[in-house]
Amino acid sequence: MSHNTFGHMFRMTTFGESHGPALGCIVDGCPPGIPLTAEEIQSYLDKRRPGQSRFTTQRQEPDAVRILSGVFEDGETKGQLTTGTPIMLLIDNVDQRSKDYAEIRDTFRPGHADYTYQAKYGFRDYRGGGRASARETAARVAAGAVARKVIPGVTIRGALIQMGPHKIDRANWDWSEVGRNPFFTPDAHAAVQWADYLDGVRKAGSSTGAIIEVTASGVPAGWGAPLYGKLDQDIAAAMMSINAVKGVEVGAGFASAALSGEDNADEIRMRHGKPEFLSNHAGGILGGISSGQDIVVRFAVKPTSSILSTRKTVTKTGEDTDIMTKGRHDPCVGIRAVPVGEAMLAIVLADHFLRHRGQVG
Amino acid sequence: MSHNTFGHMFRMTTFGESHGPALGCIVDGCPPGIPLTAEEIQSYLDKRRPGQSRFTTQRQEPDAVRILSGVFEDGETKGQLTTGTPIMLLIDNVDQRSKDYAEIRDTFRPGHADYTYQAKYGFRDYRGGGRASARETAARVAAGAVARKVIPGVTIRGALIQMGPHKIDRANWDWSEVGRNPFFTPDAHAAVQWADYLDGVRKAGSSTGAIIEVTASGVPAGWGAPLYGKLDQDIAAAMMSINAVKGVEVGAGFASAALSGEDNADEIRMRHGKPEFLSNHAGGILGGISSGQDIVVRFAVKPTSSILSTRKTVTKTGEDTDIMTKGRHDPCVGIRAVPVGEAMLAIVLADHFLRHRGQVG
Amino acid sequence: MSHNTFGHMFRMTTFGESHGPALGCIVDGCPPGIPLTAEEIQSYLDKRRPGQSRFTTQRQEPDAVRILSGVFEDGETKGQLTTGTPIMLLIDNVDQRSKDYAEIRDTFRPGHADYTYQAKYGFRDYRGGGRASARETAARVAAGAVARKVIPGVTIRGALIQMGPHKIDRANWDWSEVGRNPFFTPDAHAAVQWADYLDGVRKAGSSTGAIIEVTASGVPAGWGAPLYGKLDQDIAAAMMSINAVKGVEVGAGFASAALSGEDNADEIRMRHGKPEFLSNHAGGILGGISSGQDIVVRFAVKPTSSILSTRKTVTKTGEDTDIMTKGRHDPCVGIRAVPVGEAMLAIVLADHFLRHRGQVG
Amino acid sequence: MSHNTFGHMFRMTTFGESHGPALGCIVDGCPPGIPLTAEEIQSYLDKRRPGQSRFTTQRQEPDAVRILSGVFEDGETKGQLTTGTPIMLLIDNVDQRSKDYAEIRDTFRPGHADYTYQAKYGFRDYRGGGRASARETAARVAAGAVARKVIPGVTIRGALIQMGPHKIDRANWDWSEVGRNPFFTPDAHAAVQWADYLDGVRKAGSSTGAIIEVTASGVPAGWGAPLYGKLDQDIAAAMMSINAVKGVEVGAGFASAALSGEDNADEIRMRHGKPEFLSNHAGGILGGISSGQDIVVRFAVKPTSSILSTRKTVTKTGEDTDIMTKGRHDPCVGIRAVPVGEAMLAIVLADHFLRHRGQVG
Repeated sequence: MSHNTFGHMFRMTTFGESHGPALGCIVDGCPPGIPLTAEEIQSYLDKRRPGQSRFTTQRQEPDAVRILSGVFEDGETKGQLTTGTPIMLLIDNVDQRSKDYAEIRDTFRPGHADYTYQAKYGFRDYRGGGRASARETAARVAAGAVARKVIPGVTIRGALIQMGPHKIDRANWDWSEVGRNPFFTPDAHAAVQWADYLDGVRKAGSSTGAIIEVTASGVPAGWGAPLYGKLDQDIAAAMMSINAVKGVEVGAGFASAALSGEDNADEIRMRHGKPEFLSNHAGGILGGISSGQDIVVRFAVKPTSSILSTRKTVTKTGEDTDIMTKGRHDPCVGIRAVPVGEAMLAIVLADHFLRHRGQVG
Repeated sequence: MSHNTFGHMFRMTTFGESHGPALGCIVDGCPPGIPLTAEEIQSYLDKRRPGQSRFTTQRQEPDAVRILSGVFEDGETKGQLTTGTPIMLLIDNVDQRSKDYAEIRDTFRPGHADYTYQAKYGFRDYRGGGRASARETAARVAAGAVARKVIPGVTIRGALIQMGPHKIDRANWDWSEVGRNPFFTPDAHAAVQWADYLDGVRKAGSSTGAIIEVTASGVPAGWGAPLYGKLDQDIAAAMMSINAVKGVEVGAGFASAALSGEDNADEIRMRHGKPEFLSNHAGGILGGISSGQDIVVRFAVKPTSSILSTRKTVTKTGEDTDIMTKGRHDPCVGIRAVPVGEAMLAIVLADHFLRHRGQVG
Repeated sequence: MSHNTFGHMFRMTTFGESHGPALGCIVDGCPPGIPLTAEEIQSYLDKRRPGQSRFTTQRQEPDAVRILSGVFEDGETKGQLTTGTPIMLLIDNVDQRSKDYAEIRDTFRPGHADYTYQAKYGFRDYRGGGRASARETAARVAAGAVARKVIPGVTIRGALIQMGPHKIDRANWDWSEVGRNPFFTPDAHAAVQWADYLDGVRKAGSSTGAIIEVTASGVPAGWGAPLYGKLDQDIAAAMMSINAVKGVEVGAGFASAALSGEDNADEIRMRHGKPEFLSNHAGGILGGISSGQDIVVRFAVKPTSSILSTRKTVTKTGEDTDIMTKGRHDPCVGIRAVPVGEAMLAIVLADHFLRHRGQVG
Repeated sequence: MSHNTFGHMFRMTTFGESHGPALGCIVDGCPPGIPLTAEEIQSYLDKRRPGQSRFTTQRQEPDAVRILSGVFEDGETKGQLTTGTPIMLLIDNVDQRSKDYAEIRDTFRPGHADYTYQAKYGFRDYRGGGRASARETAARVAAGAVARKVIPGVTIRGALIQMGPHKIDRANWDWSEVGRNPFFTPDAHAAVQWADYLDGVRKAGSSTGAIIEVTASGVPAGWGAPLYGKLDQDIAAAMMSINAVKGVEVGAGFASAALSGEDNADEIRMRHGKPEFLSNHAGGILGGISSGQDIVVRFAVKPTSSILSTRKTVTKTGEDTDIMTKGRHDPCVGIRAVPVGEAMLAIVLADHFLRHRGQVG
């Protein structure tokens, strides 16, 4: 969990820039004997892929993934299995549109990492945001697809629950609706309203933020550990490592600050021979360890900083100037963060499953 | 950042249970030649120490720290300096009140880690919460005191900005007020009101949550790294690793979801010969790297789960029962989380300072 | 495996200087539910303890260990079990003889770490070697005692097989002899001769090196991993991390360089329904993974650098001078390295057992 | 330093099997602003490349490396510089000769990792050794080429000093000879004799082991750290992580066991205003920290296990059988280990340079 590596037992290391020849990741520590094909991984990448509706960037990237190592044909089934060695997942960059980068080469776009990369490294790959581009999240989604296979009993689902100032009505929540609208929202009513709202944002050359909720069902009690091995610690790190994320919460989250101890602590009763919680303010985690309830995580994505409005900024050489970021951008980058958040939760859970099995058996 | 260790180059490993003989930590990777005395560390521990007002637990713990290694007398000044080797900080537990733990031994307290520790390990030290006790945060505060010495140009300050449903008025913000009230709040007016409010909570045997804000001034641009070495990733992990924390955000945080790109992205202008941001929605971090602005972090602490009200729960042997947690507890454990949050931010920053210096020089 | 921490899933972090108040370690990642008492750990420390014969340093250290965390009374057996949380093992330094350190304060002893610590840190705790003292190995032995409990089916035994130029006769190998002589050698005949030899060395104020062999029986096939998770990689790191060790080899080791492929590769035959190797040049490890054969490791310990002969050196201020190291020293520090090597092998194996169980189940 | 990752601040993660589509590595933590081209890396790969003389495997692999990320054109010089982000180095496998692997699919070759991979994972990529193939070392050499650029003042050179039972005469040592013979040996006389010897080995379908010595000049005093951050610990791990390596030693190594304290400890005198050691039994490392002398490392490579002689073994299904390994193999795989050893030493030193700079500045 440093540099460009995330995870401890199950871990991924990503590489690649927005406009370099390729991006991808090495997934290491995966158990052997798991059926794995590029097609399966591709199905998750296709959810994140840009250019699928008018509400995401029009950059055309097939995001076709190849598995370069770590799988081998099973002698009996002839299907492809993980071998236990590192799984290299490679995605070529295809649509690196030739354009004039002179402006952003010398000028820091407000809200971007231009200024901080330059301050740190004295130098940066400015094309399309370089390493700070949201394209890197394709590698996360690919690794997340592998992670899901490590924890087959766990179901991970994400949803957009707020776009700009507009929240869903949780009474309308219908998971099957998520796949039917371009926003991954479970509220069909909201989907209609948001289409209008986002069209307005898009046409104005503006952008908006969002809040994503990701849940995991089927996680048994016992994953996670005290205290710097807490499941929620790693979930917080996972979500905050995604570009543009500014906040993360578990269960009741920030709202728990306003609760009384009576209202917050989830009571327990025996049901069908085992303990069952009567509410889930904890979001499925107590003391850093899973309780067996659904794990519930939310994170906030800031509005895309690339907008058509003219903004005040400075140049590399220290002169005041104004900038307007043309080009192909997501008016609400939070939409495509839904599959990314799912992937990160899958990676954390796969890692903690192996860590738990290692320590406790 | 796994098990009981936090940090990469500057790192701490904590140990200890609430009712064991001692707790503490090993601080490893500290640069050599830094003046360090137990007294300095003690001054931070004294802020976190329980029993200082009627608003915290009445457990009496001097939290006296001893330095068992990693420092040595300077030949010239006769002062004590860090040697660059591991610094062992030991705090004896003193007030392990003898009481009958039979009830919590066999029954899971709602909202506590009792159930999950039992589920994970099949066995637990139930006395005072064992490893899940807030007493562990003393080790964090001690390590944080060392971390501050590693980054002397950085000023880290924390404040309680919300208690239960009651928020401060940010117009009243006065840092000097923080040390003058038992709540570490910068709003003198809120301090008066909260005293009444918390007395009510305390007398009712209830508890309440809180929100803490911690800031760091003087951090130069360039600390942090893409993408799993992001400064905000590690800050999120640091705060979420504290027991009872349910959410963390940086800068505008969750509120950024509702902003437009125009309102969110911080514009830049040259001031006094260097770039200056005209606002700080980013909370001092862009692309995972510090921008030179103040780093601003908030985290939510849930209400203490130990309350006098009777709550539904089950026993280890699977029988429905009710429980009421007597004993000495903080009605608002968020208060004492203020120095803990400061310590964690100091540790993350010291770590990233060394990591940045290592890679970039 | 950096700083002062060794291991990945099962890991120890040691601290302490030769003449500080205490030394010890935190053992983290230990499985829960393992019976563990200070007495058991003590029995291993007593093997390493100085002052037990005229052949080791006369410093008197009881090396009494206390367990400060991570264990708790089992409700049924009333015995003490590991809880799965960090185990803090503390050993007080008792015999810090007051002496005049002025000479070594300002002068670098040839063969010691004086010069390099000063070069690195600009400053050092020169008393008794500070952090570079062999006293640190007490923490390793204590952690190793815990590690042995994690892998109860594995038997780890060490032996001195060469002292100075004098090798044992492997035909005389008798494990039961190891506990009957002050050298931990399995060759009773060598023990007699070495006593004379080492008396001569000791009386001359000189010192001598040694080679230790450590074996592990009962390790199942499958522990370890490619390629930077190789079992022999971690064994090499473990042994080389011990002060004064200058070489490590597995199985045929350096001698394998002179062998032909026919002679080196261990043939296999079915015996009693399972594969059995007909020789063990591999030392129980192939491709970094255990084969089920005995693991066989050897390491070389250089002669103690503290000798009574006058040696050429320089002072901190850059003047040529001569030095003679008086004080209490081991004429052959390799003797006490036998239990240390055992402990390190136990730690590596416990770690790899948990890592294997984590990945493969 | 676990899984398939080596290093802490400067680190590489390798992937790939012998007969998969590609192999390579991600180099992470590299400082920014370092000129780096594929051509430079290629020059080191060409030294390791097979098929360059009759003394190495006849497999034809161009080992052409591509840099897929982490470099960018400098605006001024137009040269390519590292950006500080992960550097992906990809090498396609070209000569995956189609052959019938039926025999080794079901039978364990003595001396190979066949048996242990099967035991661990229950399944393996048996083509050409899969992940256990020496082809993986190409990734190490590529990463090592980057590492060298991080420590420009350090000169790293390797040499073959023993082939089978035949040692060089150190009196003949001439570094310039290393590049003039197919064995990387500094002894021209030995090169002539070894050619005859190895022809005999090769024609007999046999194989032989070797010993390699690698040195680093120009390392300043102060790199490394106590105790599990020792420079020699990481060197030992680095060398032992190479397939077929069975032993590693530093300085006098195993021979130091037979020395007296007087003979072993390197005396010091002032020369030209700074301390200079009068001998180098320490191999440039004292207390785990570099002394400023040349770092001297040796490691032993066992004979290739793939030989034409018939050997006893068993099948996956537990039947006794015999096996003879046909195909293209190195009669002395130790030869090509010379550039690999150099690369690993470069990686360790680059890592420790950054770690030292991080902690001490």
